[in-house]
Amino acid sequence: MKVTEIGEFGLIRRFSPPFVAALAAGELGIGDDCAVLPQPDGSVLLATTDMLVEDVHFLRRAIVPADLGWKSLAVNLSDIAAMGGTPQAAFLSLALPRDVEVEWVDDFFAGFKELADATGTALLGGDTTRSPERVVVNVAVLGRAAADRVKLRSGARPGDAACVTGFLGDSGAGLELVLAGRQAADADEAALLRAHNRPRPHLAEGAWLAARPEVGAMMDVSDGIDSDLRRIGERSRCGALVEIERLPVSPELARTAARHGWDVTRLAAAAGEDYCLLLAADPGGVAGLAADFAAAFGRPLVTIGTFTGEPEAVRYEVGGREAKLAGHGFDHFAATGDG
Amino acid sequence: MKVTEIGEFGLIRRFSPPFVAALAAGELGIGDDCAVLPQPDGSVLLATTDMLVEDVHFLRRAIVPADLGWKSLAVNLSDIAAMGGTPQAAFLSLALPRDVEVEWVDDFFAGFKELADATGTALLGGDTTRSPERVVVNVAVLGRAAADRVKLRSGARPGDAACVTGFLGDSGAGLELVLAGRQAADADEAALLRAHNRPRPHLAEGAWLAARPEVGAMMDVSDGIDSDLRRIGERSRCGALVEIERLPVSPELARTAARHGWDVTRLAAAAGEDYCLLLAADPGGVAGLAADFAAAFGRPLVTIGTFTGEPEAVRYEVGGREAKLAGHGFDHFAATGDG
Repeated sequence: MKVTEIGEFGLIRRFSPPFVAALAAGELGIGDDCAVLPQPDGSVLLATTDMLVEDVHFLRRAIVPADLGWKSLAVNLSDIAAMGGTPQAAFLSLALPRDVEVEWVDDFFAGFKELADATGTALLGGDTTRSPERVVVNVAVLGRAAADRVKLRSGARPGDAACVTGFLGDSGAGLELVLAGRQAADADEAALLRAHNRPRPHLAEGAWLAARPEVGAMMDVSDGIDSDLRRIGERSRCGALVEIERLPVSPELARTAARHGWDVTRLAAAAGEDYCLLLAADPGGVAGLAADFAAAFGRPLVTIGTFTGEPEAVRYEVGGREAKLAGHGFDHFAATGDG
Repeated sequence: MKVTEIGEFGLIRRFSPPFVAALAAGELGIGDDCAVLPQPDGSVLLATTDMLVEDVHFLRRAIVPADLGWKSLAVNLSDIAAMGGTPQAAFLSLALPRDVEVEWVDDFFAGFKELADATGTALLGGDTTRSPERVVVNVAVLGRAAADRVKLRSGARPGDAACVTGFLGDSGAGLELVLAGRQAADADEAALLRAHNRPRPHLAEGAWLAARPEVGAMMDVSDGIDSDLRRIGERSRCGALVEIERLPVSPELARTAARHGWDVTRLAAAAGEDYCLLLAADPGGVAGLAADFAAAFGRPLVTIGTFTGEPEAVRYEVGGREAKLAGHGFDHFAATGDG
């Protein structure tokens, strides 16, 4: 059987049980945004890692190296944000084909450092090696959090509101432009490309939300909410009902999608790489939480649906009537193109 | 300018200064076997990462997946050993081409887990993704050490003895067999292939040596002592003089090299991937240290030469007369073949 037949999540389910069974008390391993390691001082250490492979996660000709450096750190910081943590240290492994220019590497590090400096993340080590053809980037990030504030994927309950901290679909729309080989035709398209190439990890939002008792579960939106709601559902033994007309779509995406005839709902629900946060909030407290969030960040905390008692089912409604989602979430083996 | 022209160490020297300048007090970043992060309880957290790329670090047809899983963890544990630390947690990123069999992945994880279990290392997370053609493995490992026992590359002084904790060249000889496409012809060749495919990280030796005041500097032998002595020399502002007849060569290597006409000295000094430890020991204390080491481990701690006052120069002698080393250390961009 080939790995394509079992898929990324199938592989993880296949190999992880013996490692999960061996966890020490209070330790959290495979299966959440970060691993959680309890520390002697009562805090927890958070650790996460992500690999970006040329022609799978990015096209070298379509992303400037400074953006790739930024993004390779950002996707990891987003996992720290999802646990309500503060990033501390990063470790970067970089495999480079022989034809890469040193100036390309300089530019990569400049972008990496720009985000590292802005977020207080120290680059403390890594590995530099040769690659036969493709650039491969692996970043690991360590962070800290208060033990009593870490929000896991397992904390959602049926009836909880499902909320997101930002627009959905902008990054996916940026990817459509990248795959079409297009430069930005206007300011809207430039914003969408920027959302794809320079995602902003929601660290401040994550730390703020982790301190709120109304929040039961949290994760970052990396594979699209359709897939990511299923991940919360797996860990919380619940499902979700999404009201499609509530999905927050940026004006830039709405205008650009109208011009190109794109399916906005598919982009918002399943394209992924938004790197905002998805959370479960107590139904009685979500209005107050959203009001305080808006006061703190000047943007809405958007309720997109409800967690349900149907294990792992993610359903969609438009105007109270069931709807089917045209696309699918992101599976690193099953998908074609940017999969 | 291409990255091949500047080389791996040139690249690191080029991009690391701004990151090193930003370090917090007591923190150690790029430039040693592990990063060192002081913890609130007075211990230090150690962190290291290594990337293995198919056709650069291994040939998929020449290594069974269980050995690759073992080795990908072993090379990181060796860095923890070099700091005198105890491993705690590992994070594994795995990029897999679509044609890889699920059973290959099962076997990879079995080998990884065998070494993880033997060393008390918990696999706590990672990333699984698709790769266009080649398997890429990145492992990051976290460990702990007592703050006052960490031995850095910067602790060697002119006059110190240069010592190693194991045979040199076995792994390089195993690689010669791999590159020649050979199966083991006898038990000697099987031992050399095993040294290359299943290196044993010297964790017990590292922890024992870190507790000894006679030890000034320590690192693991990853690129070959010729290159690795230069790394200590860079950080300690000294050089080294190696007495070639003292390089510890296993009986298996001696017999196999004689049969194939291999240059044993080049293999022992420059082939790399031995993953034993290289250290600087106080000249007055090294005899007692070696006696205690032999009593503890049943093997000798071998003095191979002396650290000198000539910054970064590594010289060789045979019978008191200067000798030239035929080969070179390991540079991931400059080298061909397994470089």
